[in-house]
Amino acid sequence: MPKTRLETFSDGVLAIIIITIMVLELKVPHGEGLDALRPLLPVFFTYVLSFVYIGIYWNNHHHMMHVVTRVTGGVLWANLNLLFWLSLFPFVTGWMGENHFARLPTALYGCVLLMAAISYTMLTVAIVNEEGRESVLARAIGSDLKGKLSIVAYAVAILLCFVSHWIAAAIYILVALAWLVPDRRIERMLTPPA
Amino acid sequence: MPKTRLETFSDGVLAIIIITIMVLELKVPHGEGLDALRPLLPVFFTYVLSFVYIGIYWNNHHHMMHVVTRVTGGVLWANLNLLFWLSLFPFVTGWMGENHFARLPTALYGCVLLMAAISYTMLTVAIVNEEGRESVLARAIGSDLKGKLSIVAYAVAILLCFVSHWIAAAIYILVALAWLVPDRRIERMLTPPA
Amino acid sequence: MPKTRLETFSDGVLAIIIITIMVLELKVPHGEGLDALRPLLPVFFTYVLSFVYIGIYWNNHHHMMHVVTRVTGGVLWANLNLLFWLSLFPFVTGWMGENHFARLPTALYGCVLLMAAISYTMLTVAIVNEEGRESVLARAIGSDLKGKLSIVAYAVAILLCFVSHWIAAAIYILVALAWLVPDRRIERMLTPPA
Amino acid sequence: MPKTRLETFSDGVLAIIIITIMVLELKVPHGEGLDALRPLLPVFFTYVLSFVYIGIYWNNHHHMMHVVTRVTGGVLWANLNLLFWLSLFPFVTGWMGENHFARLPTALYGCVLLMAAISYTMLTVAIVNEEGRESVLARAIGSDLKGKLSIVAYAVAILLCFVSHWIAAAIYILVALAWLVPDRRIERMLTPPA
Repeated sequence: MPKTRLETFSDGVLAIIIITIMVLELKVPHGEGLDALRPLLPVFFTYVLSFVYIGIYWNNHHHMMHVVTRVTGGVLWANLNLLFWLSLFPFVTGWMGENHFARLPTALYGCVLLMAAISYTMLTVAIVNEEGRESVLARAIGSDLKGKLSIVAYAVAILLCFVSHWIAAAIYILVALAWLVPDRRIERMLTPPA
Repeated sequence: MPKTRLETFSDGVLAIIIITIMVLELKVPHGEGLDALRPLLPVFFTYVLSFVYIGIYWNNHHHMMHVVTRVTGGVLWANLNLLFWLSLFPFVTGWMGENHFARLPTALYGCVLLMAAISYTMLTVAIVNEEGRESVLARAIGSDLKGKLSIVAYAVAILLCFVSHWIAAAIYILVALAWLVPDRRIERMLTPPA
Repeated sequence: MPKTRLETFSDGVLAIIIITIMVLELKVPHGEGLDALRPLLPVFFTYVLSFVYIGIYWNNHHHMMHVVTRVTGGVLWANLNLLFWLSLFPFVTGWMGENHFARLPTALYGCVLLMAAISYTMLTVAIVNEEGRESVLARAIGSDLKGKLSIVAYAVAILLCFVSHWIAAAIYILVALAWLVPDRRIERMLTPPA
Repeated sequence: MPKTRLETFSDGVLAIIIITIMVLELKVPHGEGLDALRPLLPVFFTYVLSFVYIGIYWNNHHHMMHVVTRVTGGVLWANLNLLFWLSLFPFVTGWMGENHFARLPTALYGCVLLMAAISYTMLTVAIVNEEGRESVLARAIGSDLKGKLSIVAYAVAILLCFVSHWIAAAIYILVALAWLVPDRRIERMLTPPA
């Protein structure tokens, strides 16, 4: 089975998630002055954070799918499972933004980050099972240390929410920054050594 | 006529349906505590159910279209008819979720499931008419027992709503679980026997 | 320039228009009984009408683009112009549905139908100018009597709104039915005569 | 890496932005007379302006991507950065339209135009870096005088908002008109001289 539709469908869902977050978050204020804009600042910041996260997932998904040669029913469902958790981003982003990073909303945001990261790992495993241990993808991913460390970081951040939710928010930002660097592992595998 | 645009358009509509359900259903609560989240639990459950159903339709549509070689005007309209009924999912999911599986909303949810299932069968028939009785698709689908049983199950569930809407909800879940198993019939036809 | 992106972009816009109409129109009612559903009936009917119209445009767009060999900047803008008028469907459908086919909303609905039909004709002209008078498309479209009659019908319906808006609504339905028959002209041109 | 998904994803985001602006802007009025429609006129005008701007970006993006041969992680992020700024269009359009071109909303609209124009230039630079100074794209763009003048025009307009926001609005319209002419530079490069 070809992978085109899996890509189109994922692109569609991710594109809509981004704009949905924006619409749910950044409600057009009624005043026309700076005062009307100021309460939107923390909300704008959470939008940027979620935009970057969805961007990271799209980017890595794009890189990974590039080296996939075929998809099976199992891979389709692993992908739908990932999209399910990503589809909760608008809800948790809105809740966290509206409550200015309160404890529970910040923890729930972390839970969705955690579940999305686990789902992405499951998708990787499902694909590697199809492609084989010796495939380009399997060698490019290797031990996937970055992915495993992110999962640990999210879990730690959720627990720390009940100590200080600012530390949790800082962890979410740091992990995002660590992933902003595009995943060169796959690009490197595709380039023949000099 | 090629099938690319039928696939792109269907992918777009299905992707938007999923996020629309999420947005209509899971409204960001105003409180920041667990109390604010608790009333959303049944709503979250109906979202999961509808997400799985849309996922099943996308998955089976993907499998079926894979073996289609050409589309005609009749197939395009049969597909639009299916998308019409699926486009009502956000409405009936929202109504059922907001009324905690009340009798009439649960029955209406079943009606949309029933009409979508009938439309999918009509799409299959329209395609088989084009492809011919001896085509890969025709042989892969065979008597389509699973599809026919689902239609019967939805009809029974709608009637049972007025006895106990919990039985109806249970039937919706059971049928979804039965379809979660990917439709291996088409995959099997494409794999040469050992 | 290839035509892929023009198709993807148009598919995306049309898919979102359909679901937007549904969401704007069919607001989830608060009651759980039949009484809550009844006021939605005229709204549901306008949704069906607009769904069919968007389906017709998608279908004909799909047929026309199939025989297009290249697109230029002029064609891209003619297409964007068509999408602009179609993007007003959710607004006019919502206004007409909420006011139960009142005079002015029904006339405005007709104006958008009229502008969309004129824009579609302009797109056809722009493409035929590129493809040449002897192209498959030019011969398939011929004098485009159906398109021209539709434009006249919409104009008449707008004027008749101020006599009886029910006649206008009837004209919108009749024109839609006339187009529901897929545009076999292009399919016929592609099939070699027996 | 192929460029297909970058195009699909961008098409999806841009399509949703257009319909989101329409939905946020043109709220279905409750009355059925002309009085209900009149307050929507300035809002309709801002919708047209933003539709044209998104259309220009889509058109130019389409032309530029046509001559791109491969994309890297850096190009993907430069593209996501552009989409981020374009995703703020619904918010600033809604704010400006609701406040009838008041000073601050008009200035903020200009800021988003400015950031989008800078991001587009950054995307161009990122692609030219990959394609090389001798590529079709690099020669087609040349000194990119139109792009640079637009950036200056937006900056001037933002400052002029605090003198007269009508001058600023006029500049936004004039720049849009200047770009409505499709970017023939790339088309010209692809056509061999007579």
